[in-house]
Amino acid sequence: MYINTTRLQQHFEAMSLIGKIGETGTCRPAMTVLEKEGFNLVASWMQDAGMKTHIDNFGNLIGRLKGNNPTLPVLMMGSHLDSQPYGGRFDGVAGVLCAIEVVKTLTENNIAHERSIEVISFADEEGWRFNKGLYGSKGIVGMLDPEDIERKDKDGISRRQALIDFGCDPTKSAADEYKPGSIFCFLELHIEQGPVLDMGNKPIGVVSGISGPIWWTVKLKGMAGHTGSVPMHLRKDALLGAAEITIALYEIVTQIPGAPTVGTVATINVFPASRNIIAEEVSFTIDLRDIDIERRNKYEKQLRDKIDAIAKKHSLEYSIAEDFVSEPRYCANWIKEIIHKQCEALHLEAPEIMSGPFHDAMAISYACDYGMIFVRSKDGISHNPLEYSSYQDLALGAEVLYGTAVEILSIV
Amino acid sequence: MYINTTRLQQHFEAMSLIGKIGETGTCRPAMTVLEKEGFNLVASWMQDAGMKTHIDNFGNLIGRLKGNNPTLPVLMMGSHLDSQPYGGRFDGVAGVLCAIEVVKTLTENNIAHERSIEVISFADEEGWRFNKGLYGSKGIVGMLDPEDIERKDKDGISRRQALIDFGCDPTKSAADEYKPGSIFCFLELHIEQGPVLDMGNKPIGVVSGISGPIWWTVKLKGMAGHTGSVPMHLRKDALLGAAEITIALYEIVTQIPGAPTVGTVATINVFPASRNIIAEEVSFTIDLRDIDIERRNKYEKQLRDKIDAIAKKHSLEYSIAEDFVSEPRYCANWIKEIIHKQCEALHLEAPEIMSGPFHDAMAISYACDYGMIFVRSKDGISHNPLEYSSYQDLALGAEVLYGTAVEILSIV
Repeated sequence: MYINTTRLQQHFEAMSLIGKIGETGTCRPAMTVLEKEGFNLVASWMQDAGMKTHIDNFGNLIGRLKGNNPTLPVLMMGSHLDSQPYGGRFDGVAGVLCAIEVVKTLTENNIAHERSIEVISFADEEGWRFNKGLYGSKGIVGMLDPEDIERKDKDGISRRQALIDFGCDPTKSAADEYKPGSIFCFLELHIEQGPVLDMGNKPIGVVSGISGPIWWTVKLKGMAGHTGSVPMHLRKDALLGAAEITIALYEIVTQIPGAPTVGTVATINVFPASRNIIAEEVSFTIDLRDIDIERRNKYEKQLRDKIDAIAKKHSLEYSIAEDFVSEPRYCANWIKEIIHKQCEALHLEAPEIMSGPFHDAMAISYACDYGMIFVRSKDGISHNPLEYSSYQDLALGAEVLYGTAVEILSIV
Repeated sequence: MYINTTRLQQHFEAMSLIGKIGETGTCRPAMTVLEKEGFNLVASWMQDAGMKTHIDNFGNLIGRLKGNNPTLPVLMMGSHLDSQPYGGRFDGVAGVLCAIEVVKTLTENNIAHERSIEVISFADEEGWRFNKGLYGSKGIVGMLDPEDIERKDKDGISRRQALIDFGCDPTKSAADEYKPGSIFCFLELHIEQGPVLDMGNKPIGVVSGISGPIWWTVKLKGMAGHTGSVPMHLRKDALLGAAEITIALYEIVTQIPGAPTVGTVATINVFPASRNIIAEEVSFTIDLRDIDIERRNKYEKQLRDKIDAIAKKHSLEYSIAEDFVSEPRYCANWIKEIIHKQCEALHLEAPEIMSGPFHDAMAISYACDYGMIFVRSKDGISHNPLEYSSYQDLALGAEVLYGTAVEILSIV
């Protein structure tokens, strides 16, 4: 191993104290005093690794290790330090701390490099505070919507105000966008947040891409009536319709055994929600993801047809609101090959797996090639204080990231 | 027609002003100033029909027309004047006003009768204020639970206090119970609250009995996880399980086409209810009713087996809480025959239909034989300001009730 396992563990342990909740939880919201405390600590480690640090006007913490040819496009690595409100110690943090460990190891080993290297902790990846995420990563690639900065948190504080309070000047953020071609490629290490590696007893996975999600809100309108008196064949039961659509979605996404397609109904609201009144109105969310856009498009069509047929069968009116739709974003084959090579060198059988959740890499993928390394999550648990990845696995991930960075730096 | 259609309509119109909401709605909660106002108006009509009136210590308004042999068991008729919070003008009111019209017509026509006749507006049939209904009807037949009087409404007022405020003395209510054998039979006219008569273009129905409801709360516990990262075959999705149970219930109750069995899931709650977190816990209500207790028992068994199988299939834990279970209560054949005879005399084709909802008659059925007359509900709508039954239909119902009462009074 080139990287220093003990140092990496110490960094995780130190970071886990900032915004600690309970024994193993973290609450470190974006653009707060707690995140700033995390930035200060991380910046000290960046500086110790030879990087110059600054916080840009999107709220990103950026560490830069100058290369011998600073005009070349940079090798960028990173993730985020903000957490879910009831989150764990590894989501996001892993990608920042392992990247710093990589740079420290490069400098310790006096690895010469033409390109400059940047490690970024992106601002507000999680998105729960202002109900929209990937703020910092979208910011540097010029993909923010004008309304993004106006969004308010639950206390009525706008993102603009939060940025100013954080020490940023939002009027100058345009200057912090990266020019096209200025990023050579982007590497993100992240915990899997799913059970595939753990079930397969594999510490490391090579990400094939980030699924394209379809997020809908479906509303069904039927007819209320007394549950005791309206015969079954005369009903317009919106909740029965929602149940049939829930199962239709399940059957559609599981039609090819082993395919990575996922489909979920996870929220449902009923009106009038009285146990003896047939549901008149039901709204529920659809979450459909696939790494294969053609298959996803086919399934979307199947689902729309099913919703239409089920609504007709139960005499329901319906509407489908598209809340968020994105195409899948594939990792670059050449980066995947390099990552695989590092895994083989460590005698790791690293499966290729799709990322269902999105990450900062999804935004950066619009500016350059990218690759991602997944580290095993115990029982697949994430967004929860029980989230756990072992320090051994994280060290293996950092070692793979190190080897990948060294090989990429050799390309000029 | 013996009864006075104009007078009956005037009574409905006058009653609809008490607790009026919107154009056609009613909010007249049990044991309130509004219900007392309704009682005062109805008592004046009872007295005009020759009855002596009093409010008993359960909060029932009772009008009594003395017969020539007051020691005989009484003929009892009635329903209730309390309404749903967002209710209509006819639910309950129809049974009280039509019964008064019957008594008024009897006295106008100088019909001699050995038995005394009582018309009752029962206290708190609807049950939403204290979350448990049929208070007055259960009270007079000695079927209350000790805790019923301790229940509190949303403002923290106990039923005991509400009764005292209403002018009752709950310490003396035991004396208001009817002795076994003291009620000869009970007749209740009610709006159907369902669409069967309206769909069949029939103004009047003869009730065969009141369905026995099973009310359960089912809880399923699975495992939360990211909707993007947990593969379908590794999920423990509590909402998917709930959807399958909802459809299983539908398939069980519809296995015999045309049977009167009904089954409904009308409320559902999800935790954590985030669109990108698989549902970990879901609770929902089951409402299963049938007039045929053997079939209902068979279906209950099928449903329990299905819940168990679905829970196993998705690796879910589950629990079933029995909130309320009652056997079906059948109307007396001899009373149904008399009602049918009155319908035939009026050239009405009156179908026999089961009552899915329960009524005061369900409680009184434990003390004596009973019969019920249903009046057509437009579009089957009830518990809603849109609830509507025409004055022509209500007059036909009152006429059938009159003929039935006259024939029953001839039996000594």
